[in-house]
Amino acid sequence: MDVKEVLFMNKGDGENSYAQNSPFTQRVIELSKPVLESAVQSLFGEAGIWNKVFNVADLGCASNASTFSVMSSVIENVQKKCVELNAPIPEFQLYLNDLPGNDFNTLFKGLSSFADRYNDASLFMMGAPGSFYGRLFPTNSLQLVHSSYGVHWLSKVPKLTDEAGLPLINKGKIFISKTSPVAVKEAYLRQFEEDFSLFLKSRSQEMVPNGRLVLVFNGRPSADFTRDYCYPIPWESLSEAIAAMVSEGLIQEEKLDSFNVPVYAPSQKELKGIVSKEGSFELEQLETFPINFGDKNLSDKLFKNMRSVTESMISHQFGEEILDKLYDKFIQISIEDMATNEEYKVLSFLVVLRRNATDH
Amino acid sequence: MDVKEVLFMNKGDGENSYAQNSPFTQRVIELSKPVLESAVQSLFGEAGIWNKVFNVADLGCASNASTFSVMSSVIENVQKKCVELNAPIPEFQLYLNDLPGNDFNTLFKGLSSFADRYNDASLFMMGAPGSFYGRLFPTNSLQLVHSSYGVHWLSKVPKLTDEAGLPLINKGKIFISKTSPVAVKEAYLRQFEEDFSLFLKSRSQEMVPNGRLVLVFNGRPSADFTRDYCYPIPWESLSEAIAAMVSEGLIQEEKLDSFNVPVYAPSQKELKGIVSKEGSFELEQLETFPINFGDKNLSDKLFKNMRSVTESMISHQFGEEILDKLYDKFIQISIEDMATNEEYKVLSFLVVLRRNATDH
Repeated sequence: MDVKEVLFMNKGDGENSYAQNSPFTQRVIELSKPVLESAVQSLFGEAGIWNKVFNVADLGCASNASTFSVMSSVIENVQKKCVELNAPIPEFQLYLNDLPGNDFNTLFKGLSSFADRYNDASLFMMGAPGSFYGRLFPTNSLQLVHSSYGVHWLSKVPKLTDEAGLPLINKGKIFISKTSPVAVKEAYLRQFEEDFSLFLKSRSQEMVPNGRLVLVFNGRPSADFTRDYCYPIPWESLSEAIAAMVSEGLIQEEKLDSFNVPVYAPSQKELKGIVSKEGSFELEQLETFPINFGDKNLSDKLFKNMRSVTESMISHQFGEEILDKLYDKFIQISIEDMATNEEYKVLSFLVVLRRNATDH
Repeated sequence: MDVKEVLFMNKGDGENSYAQNSPFTQRVIELSKPVLESAVQSLFGEAGIWNKVFNVADLGCASNASTFSVMSSVIENVQKKCVELNAPIPEFQLYLNDLPGNDFNTLFKGLSSFADRYNDASLFMMGAPGSFYGRLFPTNSLQLVHSSYGVHWLSKVPKLTDEAGLPLINKGKIFISKTSPVAVKEAYLRQFEEDFSLFLKSRSQEMVPNGRLVLVFNGRPSADFTRDYCYPIPWESLSEAIAAMVSEGLIQEEKLDSFNVPVYAPSQKELKGIVSKEGSFELEQLETFPINFGDKNLSDKLFKNMRSVTESMISHQFGEEILDKLYDKFIQISIEDMATNEEYKVLSFLVVLRRNATDH
């Protein structure tokens, strides 16, 4: 499975589209706004940051309107700060990035109503198609980079092998699970380390000295990786739903066994280790926030969001015809889980990284 | 009719898509390559042009691969020149612009195979959705701008009124024609003057001093505007096809009378007048080249290209159900025209403009 080709949020604006099912994401972005505000505040304290153009990138923006809400928050904070300091307001160049398979057509349709709120000559929106595991922008060009729910997606499914290098099967599961061999967890962690290091290296080349990188992504509350912890829950429910369809003969067992999702949620310790080893950024802020899905309204959104996010991969592996039934089962299993587990929640990390002051 | 909403090249890569029917455009781009080469050569002679990043924009790039052929030509010329001069090769930031309704999804799908030919860290492709009749890029940021078959599209259909300001009907026609009142021609020219002046003004703000603007678009060989001259022929055939369907009762007469295409081909004199009056650019080069459609292979391409380019507007005005029949009639009429008119050709202008040396 080539993640670049197969991973994209559902297109268009229909019932199962990502554009329609992102209120969950939008709520999370509301939580991250104060962090963006403080990142802009800190930026203004730095020498050499200012330029006639303020270049910002949103990485992994998908096709929904939440990217505009992030961007307008950045613009307003910069404008406010400039007025405070009696400094000229810069022009803004906003780069919206996602993989080339992303639905940029839908994204750009929402763009003009956003841009209309600003002066024609002060705000320039660009689409930047490509993988953020590699270079996307010219050297030394960005002051601020934001990515919401992007970097827990791996560049590829980790190659699962045991200590002797022999192929390993993550029997009946699609992600790290209680029953997964330890080597599965290790392979996932290695892939995350490799990907996230490349992400940091690429950004450090693109960002100006002292630029700020604001990331929101799924994390784990501890080193442990069992069912009792928050993160893997939706993936566990999804693999149970697939397993149930294997029992019913609707999906071949080998297809389940050969499928794993390219996603990883690090612990704080893992994250800090990678940032420190890569060396281009300093960790300025790390907050964790659990989102509790006991609330029916939120859990419904989680279910629909999960479909809009995973459908492209699932349909590539198991075929389109099983989709409706599979996601019905997924919802049913998740609801049962919630009934027995009051602490049904997903943990997010909110991280601010400051690029080292040395120039390239 | 809001041109921004209604004008777009046919999407996707099906039989009538623009992506599949652009070989005509691609041939024209081959003709314009030497001009781009000489524009790059001239750029290198200018002081203050060089930077670590070479920013180029292709305006009105649609969704076909010809934009990549233009871009690779620019890159190769710059690289060659840098090697000659023993100068460091800059990074390239290539902006692909079209209206937000353009099929950017198809455009971006073709992008990775293009970008793969270059070093990951030296070439950055951006989509820049928006109208080029207004600002698209930060101040003083572009060294080279190219637009192929873009600027003969007007920002809107001219408001047709007579000298007393009363509404005017371009009876049975969809463009300036032998039977059109003189006021129709004047209204079209006024709209072109307004649009092209705004185009030049916006570009002059975005481009660095001495930057080059390379434009290819339809032009007229003289001030006259009659059937004997090249440009209006395809539009004349299209309006005849619509009129034939009016006679058959398949299209309402009022729909034909209220429809005019937002397109204009200036004469050399008109063009020079606008450039000189607007004042931001100097005309460095103006070449004309007629494309003769006597060749059956080329004429077939013209017919298909005409459909992929006009279908969105035609279907918006007359409905989808008439499309196949209408374009069949259009081809039939055009073939008859060709048989009686050996000089069936379309004239293009190839223009190089040099931005004034004064900084903003």
